[in-house]
Amino acid sequence: MESIKLTPGKWRGLKILADDEGKFRMMAIDQRGSLKKALAKALGISPEEVTDEDIVKAKIMITKVLSPYASAVLTDPIYGFPYTFEYIPRDVGILLAYEKTGYEKAQGGRKTALLSDWSGEKIKRSGANAIKLLLYYRPDGDPEVVKYQQDIVRKVGEEARKYDIPFLLEPVGYEIEEPAKDSLEYAQRKPQIVIETVKEFTKEEYGVDVLKLEFPADLKYTEEFAGGEFDGKERDVAYDLYEVEDICEELDDTATIPWVLLSAGVGIEEFLLNVEIAVAHGASGFLAGRAIWKDAVPFYPDLDKMEKWLATEGVDNFARLYEVSDEATPYYKHKKFKSFANIDLEGKGTDWYKNY
Amino acid sequence: MESIKLTPGKWRGLKILADDEGKFRMMAIDQRGSLKKALAKALGISPEEVTDEDIVKAKIMITKVLSPYASAVLTDPIYGFPYTFEYIPRDVGILLAYEKTGYEKAQGGRKTALLSDWSGEKIKRSGANAIKLLLYYRPDGDPEVVKYQQDIVRKVGEEARKYDIPFLLEPVGYEIEEPAKDSLEYAQRKPQIVIETVKEFTKEEYGVDVLKLEFPADLKYTEEFAGGEFDGKERDVAYDLYEVEDICEELDDTATIPWVLLSAGVGIEEFLLNVEIAVAHGASGFLAGRAIWKDAVPFYPDLDKMEKWLATEGVDNFARLYEVSDEATPYYKHKKFKSFANIDLEGKGTDWYKNY
Repeated sequence: MESIKLTPGKWRGLKILADDEGKFRMMAIDQRGSLKKALAKALGISPEEVTDEDIVKAKIMITKVLSPYASAVLTDPIYGFPYTFEYIPRDVGILLAYEKTGYEKAQGGRKTALLSDWSGEKIKRSGANAIKLLLYYRPDGDPEVVKYQQDIVRKVGEEARKYDIPFLLEPVGYEIEEPAKDSLEYAQRKPQIVIETVKEFTKEEYGVDVLKLEFPADLKYTEEFAGGEFDGKERDVAYDLYEVEDICEELDDTATIPWVLLSAGVGIEEFLLNVEIAVAHGASGFLAGRAIWKDAVPFYPDLDKMEKWLATEGVDNFARLYEVSDEATPYYKHKKFKSFANIDLEGKGTDWYKNY
Repeated sequence: MESIKLTPGKWRGLKILADDEGKFRMMAIDQRGSLKKALAKALGISPEEVTDEDIVKAKIMITKVLSPYASAVLTDPIYGFPYTFEYIPRDVGILLAYEKTGYEKAQGGRKTALLSDWSGEKIKRSGANAIKLLLYYRPDGDPEVVKYQQDIVRKVGEEARKYDIPFLLEPVGYEIEEPAKDSLEYAQRKPQIVIETVKEFTKEEYGVDVLKLEFPADLKYTEEFAGGEFDGKERDVAYDLYEVEDICEELDDTATIPWVLLSAGVGIEEFLLNVEIAVAHGASGFLAGRAIWKDAVPFYPDLDKMEKWLATEGVDNFARLYEVSDEATPYYKHKKFKSFANIDLEGKGTDWYKNY
């Protein structure tokens, strides 16, 4: 059996992003737009009135209390990293976001922009362990937009290769016209959107190492939960849980690289079930943000109360996520690698340093 | 009080090299020449007959068994890193050697060469957390050699700054002509050599972040141990332990950056005492190699016996080193930084990422 070759920066990076078991138990606190909105609500003001200081203070509090429980923390280079990286323990990895928040609304869909004056080179230099890119993506969208988005991924993949650092891609689907994402139509379309996206970005030319994926279905539209179990709202039925499991299985068959689940702002109960189903079908863990900490934000600006909530309920959310992700596939057992023993250093030998 | 500014790569690197307490408990397994000699002795052959495979096998065994006990591991990029980095746990830092083994014997002393086809850029790219440079140095040596050696340190310091990675310098004194290092004359001279060297390389222009230093005296020449307590050989007396403590105190007064102790092939009992005295006078820990593992080498090529020795006596050596270094000064409490709260990110602000 031929071994899979990895460069040291990528390999060491993956090892650090994962925990001792090789499972990704990561926290996201790189939110900008959505955190601003939540803080505005807490303060009873408009998002424009939320100050940089508000965002920074909230990020410091969340990072300080919860990062010790994560295998790695994803943050942003504006309000996050420069203020919070000193609170991230030495054995917790760091991922840094590359994209500008939000998107440009082009005629045929959403276009992602990289943050200007920021780069893969800077992310590597800063001591971070991975580059993360959020990408709005509809595989069936306008060809010009599709190509535009693919080109960005390719560019970031090249940088990640050049600086030998893992590249985590987070493709997020969206509804091009109405109706909104929370609709029967979108719920029915979602599996295909996620799976087709996986098919595209696992091609080697993109240089993606880990995919951060949406759950490929919407549990709120399952026969079992359409009664409003998660948020009190009744919905139509798109599929049942057995079908959802089949969808996850298909996703995993398609994913030729390790994948983790994102929480996309859903509540903790729904996310726990998402994770449980996903890891039963090959996911290597989670990279979750709001599902863990969002209920702390309404306490802002009372930092004491925020801290209390995070140190109790927030930590409990994390603990429950560890439990339900117990069956996650360690990255080195993913079918790409098969086993730890099957991974080898690219160019291994006493002349490795010359050719690296 | 004005805070001390650190860039993120340097800061994160220091944090990872140290343990949770901020103390450096590091292991060196970057030996090349000296390990070759020891393996030759074990095999009853000449050093030239020792194969690359022998060196690699010994390094794998030592790294595999002992690196989990270290806060960080120093290795070399030829026989070490490409074969052993997979055995270094995710929460143990990695330092990589930049220099070619040995030295060029110039007329006025020893000249260091950097390993060709190797660089600070590659060290950073590989995912390592620090650059290490061993430098033969006599502050009172031939001016041309002194300048040559200083230039190398400056060059490496610039690379470390450029790639934002800690730079650990290991200056090692030597006797230019006869007599050898193990002599009364050298023992008397040693304090000044070490202290003058510290004075030079703590200048900001060199960009050194941590010094790896020889113990600034020779305990075998103290009144208390000249009777042959460490190796059965009687020696003349150069100083007593009180004077040695004063020498350490003077060294620490001179060191404007954190420093750790190297073991230079002395036995574990002598090294334990070195560390105990050094940390009582400001040292931030140790970076020790042979003192920990050298007694495993004579078992080679019996890898089972080597492993048994390392997992018992080797681990015990490590445990004893932790004990005697309990009073080590955490890097962030070194007078350079004063306290953790006094360190701040260089260029901190929401525009940090633009200017970094």
